[in-house]
Amino acid sequence: MPALTSTDVSRLTGGQLVGDGTVVIDRMGSLDRATPSTLSFLAQPRYLAQLATTAAGCVLVAPRHAEAASRLRSSVVCDDPYLAFARLTQWWAAQEVEPWRPGVHPTAVVDPAARIDSQAFVGPLAVVGAQAHVGAGAFIDSHCVLEPQARIGAGTRIAARVHVGRRCIVGDRCILHPGVVIGADGFGFAPDGGRWEKIAQLGAVRIGDDVEIGANTCIDRGALEDTVIGDGVKLDNLVQIGHNVQVGAHTAMAGCVGVAGSARIGAHCSIGGGAIVLGHLELADHVQISAATVVTRSILKPGLYSGVFPFDDNVQWEKNAATLRQLHRLRERLRALESRLT
Amino acid sequence: MPALTSTDVSRLTGGQLVGDGTVVIDRMGSLDRATPSTLSFLAQPRYLAQLATTAAGCVLVAPRHAEAASRLRSSVVCDDPYLAFARLTQWWAAQEVEPWRPGVHPTAVVDPAARIDSQAFVGPLAVVGAQAHVGAGAFIDSHCVLEPQARIGAGTRIAARVHVGRRCIVGDRCILHPGVVIGADGFGFAPDGGRWEKIAQLGAVRIGDDVEIGANTCIDRGALEDTVIGDGVKLDNLVQIGHNVQVGAHTAMAGCVGVAGSARIGAHCSIGGGAIVLGHLELADHVQISAATVVTRSILKPGLYSGVFPFDDNVQWEKNAATLRQLHRLRERLRALESRLT
Amino acid sequence: MPALTSTDVSRLTGGQLVGDGTVVIDRMGSLDRATPSTLSFLAQPRYLAQLATTAAGCVLVAPRHAEAASRLRSSVVCDDPYLAFARLTQWWAAQEVEPWRPGVHPTAVVDPAARIDSQAFVGPLAVVGAQAHVGAGAFIDSHCVLEPQARIGAGTRIAARVHVGRRCIVGDRCILHPGVVIGADGFGFAPDGGRWEKIAQLGAVRIGDDVEIGANTCIDRGALEDTVIGDGVKLDNLVQIGHNVQVGAHTAMAGCVGVAGSARIGAHCSIGGGAIVLGHLELADHVQISAATVVTRSILKPGLYSGVFPFDDNVQWEKNAATLRQLHRLRERLRALESRLT
Repeated sequence: MPALTSTDVSRLTGGQLVGDGTVVIDRMGSLDRATPSTLSFLAQPRYLAQLATTAAGCVLVAPRHAEAASRLRSSVVCDDPYLAFARLTQWWAAQEVEPWRPGVHPTAVVDPAARIDSQAFVGPLAVVGAQAHVGAGAFIDSHCVLEPQARIGAGTRIAARVHVGRRCIVGDRCILHPGVVIGADGFGFAPDGGRWEKIAQLGAVRIGDDVEIGANTCIDRGALEDTVIGDGVKLDNLVQIGHNVQVGAHTAMAGCVGVAGSARIGAHCSIGGGAIVLGHLELADHVQISAATVVTRSILKPGLYSGVFPFDDNVQWEKNAATLRQLHRLRERLRALESRLT
Repeated sequence: MPALTSTDVSRLTGGQLVGDGTVVIDRMGSLDRATPSTLSFLAQPRYLAQLATTAAGCVLVAPRHAEAASRLRSSVVCDDPYLAFARLTQWWAAQEVEPWRPGVHPTAVVDPAARIDSQAFVGPLAVVGAQAHVGAGAFIDSHCVLEPQARIGAGTRIAARVHVGRRCIVGDRCILHPGVVIGADGFGFAPDGGRWEKIAQLGAVRIGDDVEIGANTCIDRGALEDTVIGDGVKLDNLVQIGHNVQVGAHTAMAGCVGVAGSARIGAHCSIGGGAIVLGHLELADHVQISAATVVTRSILKPGLYSGVFPFDDNVQWEKNAATLRQLHRLRERLRALESRLT
Repeated sequence: MPALTSTDVSRLTGGQLVGDGTVVIDRMGSLDRATPSTLSFLAQPRYLAQLATTAAGCVLVAPRHAEAASRLRSSVVCDDPYLAFARLTQWWAAQEVEPWRPGVHPTAVVDPAARIDSQAFVGPLAVVGAQAHVGAGAFIDSHCVLEPQARIGAGTRIAARVHVGRRCIVGDRCILHPGVVIGADGFGFAPDGGRWEKIAQLGAVRIGDDVEIGANTCIDRGALEDTVIGDGVKLDNLVQIGHNVQVGAHTAMAGCVGVAGSARIGAHCSIGGGAIVLGHLELADHVQISAATVVTRSILKPGLYSGVFPFDDNVQWEKNAATLRQLHRLRERLRALESRLT
């Protein structure tokens, strides 16, 4: 990574430098594994003890830890060290990316009726359909497919091999990772004497601003209305969002989550990896779902909800699982005992 | 959406028009959110009350609700309103799609020994291998890969970025969504002193007619025999079908389902989102599996089967989960009490 | 499949031929479904009875079953029949693959600063970035994207539509199936007053030798350090590996597994399909996790671990699940009874 000094760190984070301003930093890392050229941070009080022993050349600390950090070669005092750390990672990442020039790669297949902003980039072998629109500063990497009337907002970065379906809208400053599929048909069929008749999916997908979507994640188009993803939503890899789902602003979902059709998820929710939310449910704002929990009814009150079978060594689990299959009868036996004793 | 009249609705569904035949319809929607130009439908009796208050300009109803609907500006009486609705969505979708002309896009890379029907389309940047065959009326969108000897049936529509492996067969009138992978190697290895020796997967995948497969879903090729997907099967997004699996006709699986190798699933089954079916099991016809259920043994009798840990607020869940780990001992304590009292 | 003789089988496996060396074999299959031209194998004693009735023309058997097999038209005695079978499948698969010539397909888009070994192949419409390196004998199929500084080891086979991100490393003799995404950003954000600030992911992914990765599986790049996949690891389809995860050598994971960030999985582990491993956990070597188990804490001792709600018919399940929500109270009631009786 390109090097900077502790003075640069102070300048980039807006924090206050304490100690030597000439410390050269060429990596970031945790307190316990730091080297003299490592920039580290203290975000949680439980790591405070590591401040005494760390080899880090510079540490981001909150004002309440400024004194403890003052023995270090350098430290930068800022209101939110973890946030400052996040912003520094962005600075570092930006150093690595080659500057790109707007334009359409000669191998891209772009419909003459597509509108590509003069400040956007469309990469090798991308396919852009009629009336599709790519906003200013947007970067569409190789092998992407933008179907007719798809719209990509300004400053959005779409990695290679992403699919944005017909009429689907991606907002400004979004990041879509490889393999994402926006706007495949929702899963809708009417029974017809043992066969399934397709319900054509006439809606689209609308994605707000500042949304990030992980690799191979799928968001289906709505049946009649649109599927809607709010501003600032973050979805990890291999997430499935069914048709007509609404996800409120700044909600985050970890990998392998599945949200079935027509669920309405509030704003500022967090859903742990592998959780499943059934269809047509409503989750209030600020609901947190533990990993691998199956949400089978609406949750109207903020809070943390869980539902995972506790794992155990296999022999113990088998015993408990076998008993669980008779649990209702156990309760009846207990009630019978209670009655006899009353 | 393009507009039609209530008379058109009657004609397209084969239903009987009641009321004004000149009502202009430009959208479909639910009874409770309808506008005067909305076509709606009454498929479930529990929505009957909405018929009295809906603003819909035209409603599809069953004969038993014809009278209740007669006060509306128009209605169309048909045997199965939901099925009629499904077919109308297809009509609407068809209006939107540009007519396409058969042919091979000049940027596609097609082996000279591939056979593309003169009435088929192969899109930009697709790759078609030797002896692959694309049937009449099939539509292969951009970036698809058809490996050597793959066969695509007549009228099948394959979205962008779909992979159909060597010797794999897709039937007629199928729909494959973006990112689908048909015929990757099944997961088979022989242990060899702590290492894994690959069992080459010599089978293929055979997919019947009228099958729909969701985005990023994977169906592995068989180890020795083929993996077989029956006619009319519907798979949602991010589904995993292991090698040698057989799925009976008209079975449907929702998103994120995993079916392990050599499972045999019957016809007309439905498997809820996130469910897991272990390997080498057999499911009879007409078995329904609730979402997120883990099927650990064969099911030979039709019916609905479930197995999900009920979620709760986290504090409650923790208490119950902790007790669950002692459940077998609880049963023994209960039995001891019962003995003492007998 | 191309035919061979029982003598060829003996030669290819290094086993000892018993019986007729001229039996023509044109397929492999199980003992119970064999034909006179089928090569079968006896790997598990429980199938011993089938040896008496099989129609197979040749069977691979262990020395202890040599006598029982001697009545067959031919058999080949070898130390590990299943391993011999695995190697024969590879021989058969190799017959099918067309010989390929090294070189870069004219439709590939290769940066002038990429280094492609003269004995490697880069397929149609692949994109290879600056300073990317493709080793000798590597095969990069169509539509692959190798970002700048990606490195692909010697003899590695990468199927169509695979993504290898910037600076990520894939070892020698690996197999990556279609749709794999290596090196998308890990899921890391710092909270900022209700919004999420991106933590740029500065690490990469390092994959050892002899690794196989299934279709549409994702392995995220590390936040600061690299995500590391050991030698000989086998991952099935639709697996999610979060950032900073370490997977020890020769560990296998079945389909739909999710491993959250910073988990450290030991060597020689096996993780069943649909299992979830939470973040920051440690699993010792030789840990086996049953399918669909959720691992919520570290496992420091080898063994088999499980945690799945037993499924049942829906009526039974509902009763037991409802009771489960009161399990803690049941325990208290039981304790109260016990107290009264003491």
